[in-house]
Amino acid sequence: MRFSKMFIPTLREVPADADAVSHRLMLRAGYVRQLASGLYIFLPLGWRALNRINAILKKEMESIGAQEISMPILHPAEIWQQTGRWDSIGDEMFRLKDRTGRAMCLGMTHEETMTWLASREIRSYRDLPQIWYQIQTKLRDEARPKSGVLRTREFLMKDSYSFDADEESLEKSYQLHAKAYHKIFQRCGLKFYQVESDPGMMGGVVAHEFMAPSPAGEDEVALCDKCGYAANVELAKSVPSKIKSEDRGFEEVHTPDKRTAQEGDTCHKCGAKLRIEKCIEIGNIFKLGTKYSVPLKAFFLDENGSEKPIIMGSYGIGPARIAAAAIEQNNDKDGIIWPKSLAPFDVEILPLNMNDAKTVETAEKLYKGLKEKGIEVLMDDRNERAGIKFKDADLIGIPAHIILGEKNLKEGLVEIKDRRTKEAVKVKMEEVVERVSVTAPLSS
Amino acid sequence: MRFSKMFIPTLREVPADADAVSHRLMLRAGYVRQLASGLYIFLPLGWRALNRINAILKKEMESIGAQEISMPILHPAEIWQQTGRWDSIGDEMFRLKDRTGRAMCLGMTHEETMTWLASREIRSYRDLPQIWYQIQTKLRDEARPKSGVLRTREFLMKDSYSFDADEESLEKSYQLHAKAYHKIFQRCGLKFYQVESDPGMMGGVVAHEFMAPSPAGEDEVALCDKCGYAANVELAKSVPSKIKSEDRGFEEVHTPDKRTAQEGDTCHKCGAKLRIEKCIEIGNIFKLGTKYSVPLKAFFLDENGSEKPIIMGSYGIGPARIAAAAIEQNNDKDGIIWPKSLAPFDVEILPLNMNDAKTVETAEKLYKGLKEKGIEVLMDDRNERAGIKFKDADLIGIPAHIILGEKNLKEGLVEIKDRRTKEAVKVKMEEVVERVSVTAPLSS
Repeated sequence: MRFSKMFIPTLREVPADADAVSHRLMLRAGYVRQLASGLYIFLPLGWRALNRINAILKKEMESIGAQEISMPILHPAEIWQQTGRWDSIGDEMFRLKDRTGRAMCLGMTHEETMTWLASREIRSYRDLPQIWYQIQTKLRDEARPKSGVLRTREFLMKDSYSFDADEESLEKSYQLHAKAYHKIFQRCGLKFYQVESDPGMMGGVVAHEFMAPSPAGEDEVALCDKCGYAANVELAKSVPSKIKSEDRGFEEVHTPDKRTAQEGDTCHKCGAKLRIEKCIEIGNIFKLGTKYSVPLKAFFLDENGSEKPIIMGSYGIGPARIAAAAIEQNNDKDGIIWPKSLAPFDVEILPLNMNDAKTVETAEKLYKGLKEKGIEVLMDDRNERAGIKFKDADLIGIPAHIILGEKNLKEGLVEIKDRRTKEAVKVKMEEVVERVSVTAPLSS
Repeated sequence: MRFSKMFIPTLREVPADADAVSHRLMLRAGYVRQLASGLYIFLPLGWRALNRINAILKKEMESIGAQEISMPILHPAEIWQQTGRWDSIGDEMFRLKDRTGRAMCLGMTHEETMTWLASREIRSYRDLPQIWYQIQTKLRDEARPKSGVLRTREFLMKDSYSFDADEESLEKSYQLHAKAYHKIFQRCGLKFYQVESDPGMMGGVVAHEFMAPSPAGEDEVALCDKCGYAANVELAKSVPSKIKSEDRGFEEVHTPDKRTAQEGDTCHKCGAKLRIEKCIEIGNIFKLGTKYSVPLKAFFLDENGSEKPIIMGSYGIGPARIAAAAIEQNNDKDGIIWPKSLAPFDVEILPLNMNDAKTVETAEKLYKGLKEKGIEVLMDDRNERAGIKFKDADLIGIPAHIILGEKNLKEGLVEIKDRRTKEAVKVKMEEVVERVSVTAPLSS
């Protein structure tokens, strides 16, 4: 893409009301804009980054046999009434009436609709197991939207749901997800922890959260560097009576008498000291058991012909949180430093003087050559000063910059600069495409 | 994909309440399910078909320089109040209040939010032209949802918006869209008409609709086979006072005194007889002028430094309507006959006897070989009778079937059957992959 043809409204000023680093940088680099409280517009660069994340999500979901479907955002109240969540969830649920006066809500999650579908379509143990997923908009009326795309009222979510005949099979679906999640976050270049509640407790209620360490995080994780124990501070040290699901946008269970773990507490597994780290929750996995299948009558006939409730799990990942966490973990004073797998482009070409025919000609040649190799290229073809191009390039954070200066070009040389290290190497013109092709990820 | 691992709930029964052929077939072939009135779930096959359509939309939008962004579904009332549509639109708009009592609505279209963004970000003629698009959910509280995915309360829409400095430039953006739309519908294998209102009339208010002929259509088009004149019956013959935009989900203008064109009426252009055909509206393009930019203060500074309103256009396509129209135009008594470009898979392998080792081995080999060529393959690996496999294959409508029967295999032969003509040719095993690769579209 040509910068001149692309809508990238970078800002010189630091937005006053943006608290988190990722929020400030996504605004300044022209990735997002806020339409209203907790409602964000993704601009071309932001949407490209999100789509790269979604492509990774799809690939890894499909590798565990999950099947993509698409559910409505608008739900009839009835199915939420059947599970009891119509009443147990408060103001976080957007509610409305349709033209006939029928009560509806906006999907804050899709356990109800997915279970409804299973109740209609799954009849026999032969239809099991199933994993269905979607990458779909969720709406939650957060009391305090904050930190840009980290806590919003409308957001994309990769949500998957497993349907199994028994606990053993659920355990398989659950572990498939855990492994896929590790692969996803690794591919996204994130530092993260899988944070555990004590498995096997509470009648099969098991949950894990995936946490990306960042000062912008709203969650706190207790970590034991000695034995590797990691848990949400609310669960750490003592076995919880129930799983707190604030990260799912609402609290269903309160455990007000429980003391949260603190810095220096003792690890209940090995006795070492725990440390506390702020984290962004980027994913979660839940064993639901029959919580939804029983009230929504999602039953199946087992091998002996007796009717049993389907055993379920649900699994979420927020793509925008991955983007924000990646920026929180990868930035410097000049801007974003994208992990290669998430960058909206693989490489940015900076022809410094657009009035120099040789510069323009070389830039066009490189642009074409790289695109032919399947590399996603942004070329800053604007008639702007070199200083502005450098500043915008650092802000936007494409991992590799190819700098075309007149002096170097006269010697047949081009500079390749690493956005992270800011190290630049001079490379012969004819070697650039090959060199960049080797290091760039294959475009999705 | 393996049929046994895929969720394809085909139905033997014809659903009682489904009127349109496309609706019946999408239900029977396991493409969609209805959650509630006008609210549809896309199952794996349906979602794959929709994604093929979306890939074509993206490609053609990007070829005219349109940039993909993503807007929220939830909108603050204020911007709709500013354009007057908060009041002029009735029950079709889903309205709700957030937890603070603030009035909100669900986006039935995005002129308001797109113009709001332009008002913030476009300052100078140098920022123009722009074309922004998204493939995003719309919500409209239809009085009478009907015909399956043809008229629903929630649906995907490819909506694009052009921002220009003057009428001449708008005309360019408009024609770029018209050309892209022709290419899109051609690539989707649809018969369609571009239906005109009289351009240049009514202070620049110009609109065209793209209509796919089908008995399931709710629109009627007046066609002149002699001169090629084509118009919505409401516009045909006489110049309309305003554009009726029922297809956009709401009526803003009523022209109750106007008589609609009828079969045998006289073409006002050439004097020949008009014929009337029922059509599905699959797309529309509108010159908006300054209707939204003035109330939302989307102004820019022109070359002389004077402030002017941005000249806008808006352009919509409904992917689910393309899918339904394709089925309406391509089916037989046995099921769907997908155009190659939209089929959820390029080819289906039918190993007739899964208990025969040679059959299974050959099927697996073909499956692997075709996938390596980038061909999307569905393999019916279920342990079902041949009759059931044939019935389901015809119903689902993948364009080419590779049939593996024991008798043919003994002679080293395989049948390739064309879903449309039902003609089968026997081909040597080792030639199958090559033969199918040549005719299958490149996978997106």
